[in-house]
Amino acid sequence: MIRPDERRRIAVHECGHALVAYFTPNSDPVHKVSIIPRGLAALGYTLQRPEDDRYLMTRKELEARIQTFLAGTIAEEMEFDAVSTGAQNDLERATDLARAMVMDFGMSRLGRMSFRDNPRATFLGNGMPQQRLHSEETAREIDQEIRGIIDGLFQQTKTLLEDKKAILERLTERLLEKEIIENEELKEVIEAQEASSGIPADVHSLENTESDSQAKLQ
Amino acid sequence: MIRPDERRRIAVHECGHALVAYFTPNSDPVHKVSIIPRGLAALGYTLQRPEDDRYLMTRKELEARIQTFLAGTIAEEMEFDAVSTGAQNDLERATDLARAMVMDFGMSRLGRMSFRDNPRATFLGNGMPQQRLHSEETAREIDQEIRGIIDGLFQQTKTLLEDKKAILERLTERLLEKEIIENEELKEVIEAQEASSGIPADVHSLENTESDSQAKLQ
Amino acid sequence: MIRPDERRRIAVHECGHALVAYFTPNSDPVHKVSIIPRGLAALGYTLQRPEDDRYLMTRKELEARIQTFLAGTIAEEMEFDAVSTGAQNDLERATDLARAMVMDFGMSRLGRMSFRDNPRATFLGNGMPQQRLHSEETAREIDQEIRGIIDGLFQQTKTLLEDKKAILERLTERLLEKEIIENEELKEVIEAQEASSGIPADVHSLENTESDSQAKLQ
Amino acid sequence: MIRPDERRRIAVHECGHALVAYFTPNSDPVHKVSIIPRGLAALGYTLQRPEDDRYLMTRKELEARIQTFLAGTIAEEMEFDAVSTGAQNDLERATDLARAMVMDFGMSRLGRMSFRDNPRATFLGNGMPQQRLHSEETAREIDQEIRGIIDGLFQQTKTLLEDKKAILERLTERLLEKEIIENEELKEVIEAQEASSGIPADVHSLENTESDSQAKLQ
Amino acid sequence: MIRPDERRRIAVHECGHALVAYFTPNSDPVHKVSIIPRGLAALGYTLQRPEDDRYLMTRKELEARIQTFLAGTIAEEMEFDAVSTGAQNDLERATDLARAMVMDFGMSRLGRMSFRDNPRATFLGNGMPQQRLHSEETAREIDQEIRGIIDGLFQQTKTLLEDKKAILERLTERLLEKEIIENEELKEVIEAQEASSGIPADVHSLENTESDSQAKLQ
Amino acid sequence: MIRPDERRRIAVHECGHALVAYFTPNSDPVHKVSIIPRGLAALGYTLQRPEDDRYLMTRKELEARIQTFLAGTIAEEMEFDAVSTGAQNDLERATDLARAMVMDFGMSRLGRMSFRDNPRATFLGNGMPQQRLHSEETAREIDQEIRGIIDGLFQQTKTLLEDKKAILERLTERLLEKEIIENEELKEVIEAQEASSGIPADVHSLENTESDSQAKLQ
Repeated sequence: MIRPDERRRIAVHECGHALVAYFTPNSDPVHKVSIIPRGLAALGYTLQRPEDDRYLMTRKELEARIQTFLAGTIAEEMEFDAVSTGAQNDLERATDLARAMVMDFGMSRLGRMSFRDNPRATFLGNGMPQQRLHSEETAREIDQEIRGIIDGLFQQTKTLLEDKKAILERLTERLLEKEIIENEELKEVIEAQEASSGIPADVHSLENTESDSQAKLQ
Repeated sequence: MIRPDERRRIAVHECGHALVAYFTPNSDPVHKVSIIPRGLAALGYTLQRPEDDRYLMTRKELEARIQTFLAGTIAEEMEFDAVSTGAQNDLERATDLARAMVMDFGMSRLGRMSFRDNPRATFLGNGMPQQRLHSEETAREIDQEIRGIIDGLFQQTKTLLEDKKAILERLTERLLEKEIIENEELKEVIEAQEASSGIPADVHSLENTESDSQAKLQ
Repeated sequence: MIRPDERRRIAVHECGHALVAYFTPNSDPVHKVSIIPRGLAALGYTLQRPEDDRYLMTRKELEARIQTFLAGTIAEEMEFDAVSTGAQNDLERATDLARAMVMDFGMSRLGRMSFRDNPRATFLGNGMPQQRLHSEETAREIDQEIRGIIDGLFQQTKTLLEDKKAILERLTERLLEKEIIENEELKEVIEAQEASSGIPADVHSLENTESDSQAKLQ
Repeated sequence: MIRPDERRRIAVHECGHALVAYFTPNSDPVHKVSIIPRGLAALGYTLQRPEDDRYLMTRKELEARIQTFLAGTIAEEMEFDAVSTGAQNDLERATDLARAMVMDFGMSRLGRMSFRDNPRATFLGNGMPQQRLHSEETAREIDQEIRGIIDGLFQQTKTLLEDKKAILERLTERLLEKEIIENEELKEVIEAQEASSGIPADVHSLENTESDSQAKLQ
Repeated sequence: MIRPDERRRIAVHECGHALVAYFTPNSDPVHKVSIIPRGLAALGYTLQRPEDDRYLMTRKELEARIQTFLAGTIAEEMEFDAVSTGAQNDLERATDLARAMVMDFGMSRLGRMSFRDNPRATFLGNGMPQQRLHSEETAREIDQEIRGIIDGLFQQTKTLLEDKKAILERLTERLLEKEIIENEELKEVIEAQEASSGIPADVHSLENTESDSQAKLQ
Repeated sequence: MIRPDERRRIAVHECGHALVAYFTPNSDPVHKVSIIPRGLAALGYTLQRPEDDRYLMTRKELEARIQTFLAGTIAEEMEFDAVSTGAQNDLERATDLARAMVMDFGMSRLGRMSFRDNPRATFLGNGMPQQRLHSEETAREIDQEIRGIIDGLFQQTKTLLEDKKAILERLTERLLEKEIIENEELKEVIEAQEASSGIPADVHSLENTESDSQAKLQ
């Protein structure tokens, strides 16, 4: 029912998510990548599953999540000559996270404070959007911080995916063939491809505990 | 019941839509052009029908759609000395698409992020318009991107229609005569007219698969 | 019940509407001018009736309508030394049309796009005014276009009425005398007055088909 | 029940209204001035009654009304060393009229157009204030026009009352004594006072038809 | 139940109100000062009672009231090294009065007009805050006038209280001892303290009728 | 159920709160520090309990409270290389207090006035956020004051915690071991650690009555 060119685009998009999640420190492990449509909303999906229950997220984990969201559209851009509408939800979620980093978590140059002026208003459940107390100029500074976060992580993610272009294409072929790739097979495809290019296969697994990877990223 | 000068204007308007849809790569094929009024809302219509089910739209497809929306008023402008109110809905839809390209799909110089600040607010169904979190200056940048998209596609579409002016006029006469033109006849009229001007008739059909046309457009 | 000076002012106001509608190409013919009060709202009225059913309006027709709305207050200004509150509704409607030309119909230097940001919000019927998505600077540009349209048409209309001052005064006397003037008599008064001034009487009837008049106006 | 100093202030305030209404062309005649409190709202009142039913107001009549509203606080300022809260409603009404002159009636340098952007919104009856479509800069221009109107009429009214200071004081004494002054007696007091100062008593009655007075004011 | 340091702070705060009310011309006489808590809201209070029913307030009376509101926090500042949250309601009321002077009563450099744009909106009772019609720049001018009024009266009040520091401290001790001081005793304490410092005791009672005091203040 | 690295982070965060509360004059004594999760919301908590009922807060007490709120995230920053989302609520509360200092309590350079323009609107209970009457420029000044307060207190708190780094780490180990530390044990750990570093243990208890500590801080 899905046109072949759309099916390929979806596979590329999902493999983008999966590869960036795999190679980015502080990212939850990829559990499954699929291009079997799930109901109305999703044409494909990449499922990450944390190894343990989590209650907090660090700045680096938030950044890794933003990078993973941006990876789908970047992969499309690399493989086709125009991006598609398929990234709308990814961009919303990436922007929401970047906004929360600036406005809720004090993770920007604007300092360790909150810019949600009426936090209680969101509990009212009457759909009333919250009123902005801060000034236009502060709103502009917030915009610039958010855009700075997104742009920086976009560049990092693009560089990463360009480095892994061969794996991306290899993985896309496999996904088109099998429709679902589980985490073990994902690892195999990546390691096989890296082995064939002379890259040591276990780099990522070494990096995959939080404390180590953080030391390297900063 | 419709005055002859209005009927001619409607025919010109619809033929504008039809011709631009026909000649623009990444456009869905034209199924039917009609100037038989359909109830209260539409005095004429141009029906496009995708060849397969579609789930995604690329930037080029969105641009083709905007061009097709703009084509009606451009055709009026070419044939009469004043445009009419008939383009109101076309302009709304063209602007909405351009706005979505900038605000939802990351398809502008403002980067791969979302500018709908409270996407959930639109699900509330209480008619409450969403609150803007971003600043005036960001709103201005969004305006400029939207206007840049519309103006650029307007010029492209105008150039295309001026190139095809003879066909536009020929097709308008036929539509006034027959009231409905189906896709086969549309193709015949265009090919006949092009043949008589020494232009190879099959240009468009060659271009009409997505991957080819994209390579040419960019 | 109406004071004589107010009755004269109303007659002048209505004759302003009627004369400008008569002499402006692209205007619907004047059916009746009356200074018999109609209920609470209207002290006098000028009734225009299109010759056929209409489904579209061209830019020139919209401009003619704005000119006709502005004509009442301009006539007052010419005959008295202060304008009155009687033009409030005329100014609202003239401004609404000019705003629609800029925001809905793409008939200004701001280009062929729509500036009603949430067109669907107007269908909600809950009285919620629509939210503005575009920026202050764009709003300012829209204001300037609207004002430019109104000011330009104001000057044109004033020049026209000053040229026809003798007819305006003659027609006012007749309306004060008879209270109602129908379209045949309107034409007679105008032609008689023009004849007595050596002006050919049939100028307007010649101009009254759209295509001709447009060629002259532009 | 009212303190003597407040009673005097109220008398001065009302005599200010009455004198300016009396001496300003285009003003309705003063029917009665009273300092007998009327219920909760009014401590005193000046009643004007038009000579005939009125359906329109000219710019000059609106200006005369604004001057009459401003006269109460100006009279207080002349007789006491601080103005009081008693002018709140007068200032609201004067400002509302000046705003309507600019926004509804086209009586300012901003031109013959309406600045009430959603006139229909006011009919909704749900207390929703109307949304502003025009820009900040236009709002600023409107503010400046309104303030210009108020300031100009304030100066004119002050000059008038300073010229009539002796009458103001004479009339205040009479009002404190009698509590109510009807229009005949008002005229007598003014004429007597003017006679004693060598000023011809019938100036105002001569001016009191609209067309004459307008010629003089402009 | 109240900690001794808080009880002392409350006493200082209330004595600040009482002394400024006592020494400021155009202020209503102080009826009672108390530090016996009244229910949830008030830890202490200063009760002023006008000598007669009042219907109007002059600018000087409004200023005196603002000074009295500011006096509590100024007294705290003089006696302790940090002000407290106890002045929140005083500051709201002082600011509301200053705002009303500018926006409702025409008592600022912005002129004799009203800046409440939709006075009727406040009668709707649906909690809808009124819409601002005036521009940002006008809002800024209003802010500056309000701040100018508050700052000027703050300095005057501070100077007054610094002059009366000895009385403030004497009165505070007495209030801590007795919990309630009625107006007769207030006068005695002040007169006794002033006598012991060689200041004539009856200065304020001489000033306490409005007309005299106004002549002195201006 | 909580991952060890998260458990350590929570302990560090809570010990940050506890130590700053302990060492900051004008802070309520720490009653208990816990990393036993309490229901859904809190992963750990630091409980302060005032020694007596309190009815007022001084500026210094508000500042101490802000410092205590900021201490959790500062401690995280010192011990890990990225802060976490765990400070969201702390930052909201710190910002709310700083905003209240500026807008409600007159504790900034903007003067002794209130910037909550419609205080009554908050009593309406209909979730309608209050309307801002003051201007953009004033809103910007408020933003700058709030940010100045937060930044200044952030630096002070960071300096304090860096001075006490050894105690922070010692206390964290103990909390990880015992899960709950009550106030007596908190004091013992701190005194023991300070003794071992040659710092007199009773500094804070000397400072802990308000009047003394204020003299030192200012």
